[in-house]
Amino acid sequence: MTELLNQITTLSTADIAAPIGFHADGQHVGLKHKSKDLGWIYSDVIASVAGVFTTNLVQAAPVQLDKKTIRNGQLQAIIVNSGNANAVTGSIGVSHAESMQEFTAQQLNIDTSLVGVASTGIIGKVLPIDKIINGIKQLKIDGDTNGFAHAIMTTDTKEKSITIQSTIQGKIVTMSGVAKGSGMLHPNMATMLGFITTDINIDAKLLQQALSEDVETSFNQITIDGDTSTNDTVLVMANGLAGHKMIENHTAEYEQFKDMLHTVTTALSIAIANDGEGATKLIAVAVNHAQSALDARMVAKKIVGSSLVKTAIFGKDPNWGRIIAAIGASNVDLNPNLIDISINKIAVLVNGAPADFNADTMAEKLEEHDIHIDVDLHAGTESGCAWGSDLTYEYVKINALYTT
Amino acid sequence: MTELLNQITTLSTADIAAPIGFHADGQHVGLKHKSKDLGWIYSDVIASVAGVFTTNLVQAAPVQLDKKTIRNGQLQAIIVNSGNANAVTGSIGVSHAESMQEFTAQQLNIDTSLVGVASTGIIGKVLPIDKIINGIKQLKIDGDTNGFAHAIMTTDTKEKSITIQSTIQGKIVTMSGVAKGSGMLHPNMATMLGFITTDINIDAKLLQQALSEDVETSFNQITIDGDTSTNDTVLVMANGLAGHKMIENHTAEYEQFKDMLHTVTTALSIAIANDGEGATKLIAVAVNHAQSALDARMVAKKIVGSSLVKTAIFGKDPNWGRIIAAIGASNVDLNPNLIDISINKIAVLVNGAPADFNADTMAEKLEEHDIHIDVDLHAGTESGCAWGSDLTYEYVKINALYTT
Repeated sequence: MTELLNQITTLSTADIAAPIGFHADGQHVGLKHKSKDLGWIYSDVIASVAGVFTTNLVQAAPVQLDKKTIRNGQLQAIIVNSGNANAVTGSIGVSHAESMQEFTAQQLNIDTSLVGVASTGIIGKVLPIDKIINGIKQLKIDGDTNGFAHAIMTTDTKEKSITIQSTIQGKIVTMSGVAKGSGMLHPNMATMLGFITTDINIDAKLLQQALSEDVETSFNQITIDGDTSTNDTVLVMANGLAGHKMIENHTAEYEQFKDMLHTVTTALSIAIANDGEGATKLIAVAVNHAQSALDARMVAKKIVGSSLVKTAIFGKDPNWGRIIAAIGASNVDLNPNLIDISINKIAVLVNGAPADFNADTMAEKLEEHDIHIDVDLHAGTESGCAWGSDLTYEYVKINALYTT
Repeated sequence: MTELLNQITTLSTADIAAPIGFHADGQHVGLKHKSKDLGWIYSDVIASVAGVFTTNLVQAAPVQLDKKTIRNGQLQAIIVNSGNANAVTGSIGVSHAESMQEFTAQQLNIDTSLVGVASTGIIGKVLPIDKIINGIKQLKIDGDTNGFAHAIMTTDTKEKSITIQSTIQGKIVTMSGVAKGSGMLHPNMATMLGFITTDINIDAKLLQQALSEDVETSFNQITIDGDTSTNDTVLVMANGLAGHKMIENHTAEYEQFKDMLHTVTTALSIAIANDGEGATKLIAVAVNHAQSALDARMVAKKIVGSSLVKTAIFGKDPNWGRIIAAIGASNVDLNPNLIDISINKIAVLVNGAPADFNADTMAEKLEEHDIHIDVDLHAGTESGCAWGSDLTYEYVKINALYTT
């Protein structure tokens, strides 16, 4: 993060089609009962593309297809459905993902190899491909751009989107992102999807470098269930229409691009954590003075992923014992006797020893929606964050009370 | 597991003092409100000892002490309290653990270096050492032997103990074990403790080899929260009073000893999983035809540790999508298209594709208390198991509704 971040403005209205030359639509086409379930993003010109995908060995058909598609570094459109993940669907699933790609390309009159595909929803059920083909016919190039963010939702209770602007070489540049949550649910699983559009001019290789690096500190640092899904996908399209010269590696412009990307990915990550299934609280963990950034992230993620910490926060219990136990279980080499922990700025552990705190003040702090757990390892100079939500009755209910 | 296992008999009454020359007591001495909270085990003669301890970097004072104590391979007594874990208690905690050790040695008139110490209960609170010293005075060598299993309990709802017998070289040999659960709770955390006594004649080195190997397939394969605690301890004492010749490595007797040990550790592991906090069901996962035993165990443990699988089982949902997703997230190299999954003997996935099953029959099976998930990876010849419990409202309640 550099001082250039100060030059980034978040627009009051988010729109995935806000960057120059982007278009989008999102409609209900019958995959879900009532809500929007099919959408696309289209760019007037071929865009550079970068992608990151689930590390789960069980990968849905659209994930397998996208990995091939983006190898040439170019994309012009993305088609996404919710309601069915097209995962664990065998060879028919692969051919359905290809059909989505081909039919979208036909409708937009572009090459098949320029279309990305994503699906989310129930797994193990054959995709109702006819509904999707008919649905694609209904999509407009300039349609309900806000509808796209809704069309990718499954158990999400809130739309997750952001649009930011800055300037590069005197040109206004715009970046937008939409995402859906990683909670897994009804009836088998949902997944985490993220799509980012920008009119910045950057080649695919550098875009991929920036994205791969960025997700380590953003999307990979959220955890709702601690599991990866079969469909997790993040795609970034950069079409270059902002009109500045192509961004080169090792330049101030590249640093600024990375700052913008991180602003978008972090905002989406926090929005996802904040909307965890059944969540009543956002848990944001910051680990400071670690020996390495990886150490810091591992400790932060272990805390935010601990069922015991998550239930304690739901119960408004400043249970630092569970936090220190999670830190100790993180597989990071550290000295427990140096560790400080605070919860919403109130110290609960100092130099590895329990700190006295005012129970009433703490009780008030734990009523807040955002719970910040700050950990100082006193072991180095690096930092890292992770985000999650509390573990609630509602989480159990949502995930238990469905019968396949 | 060999055919010798057939020669092992489980006694109808378990007793940690059943092996020749062992004695025990368990009493209430005021650490907890009403229930038993202090106990010991004593052997007439010095026993070989082996131990395994938590891998958490934050280790309670008694764990630190025991690691030193058992280095010489000998132990004659173990003193255990519940109600307070003596963890994150700094240097005073270390001196308190030493006081427990010294005073127990005095009372039993044995060398200090022959006494193991274990604590479980609240963390971060100074041990009420006076109550413990006074309590040790109340313990009898031949006291309430069944009381020992109760004195180590925290949130456990059931006593966990087993006694088995077999013969070695014509001599009857006896092995007993007691354990307490790994659920973590009120107000900070509990822990997993296990103590095993036997009159078998085996040296400390071979005993440690057998134990270290065994826990990989027993205690390390249970998960309630997925976290390790600050106090996890397993100690085995073998005093040799059964009267057979010392067991040597690479012999049938050693194989039989390992079978007996595994019978005890597995029974205790399943008892712990079965008594997970708020649990309504035992989940037993068996993974077969893996490339390696480690692969099998990793896959099994990932399934049984998945919050999504655990909530599905609570909800009586045959949600194989979550099971296959957990398998894919296990970091084991496998081919998803070869995998079979069954739930209580009903196939739900065959060759990586959904299987048709009778919903009514499945619904009946999911009413059962024990849920067996069998996975066939079709990748090799090795197997592994893991045990856990479901994730319930009650788990959230137990872990949320305490305010420190």
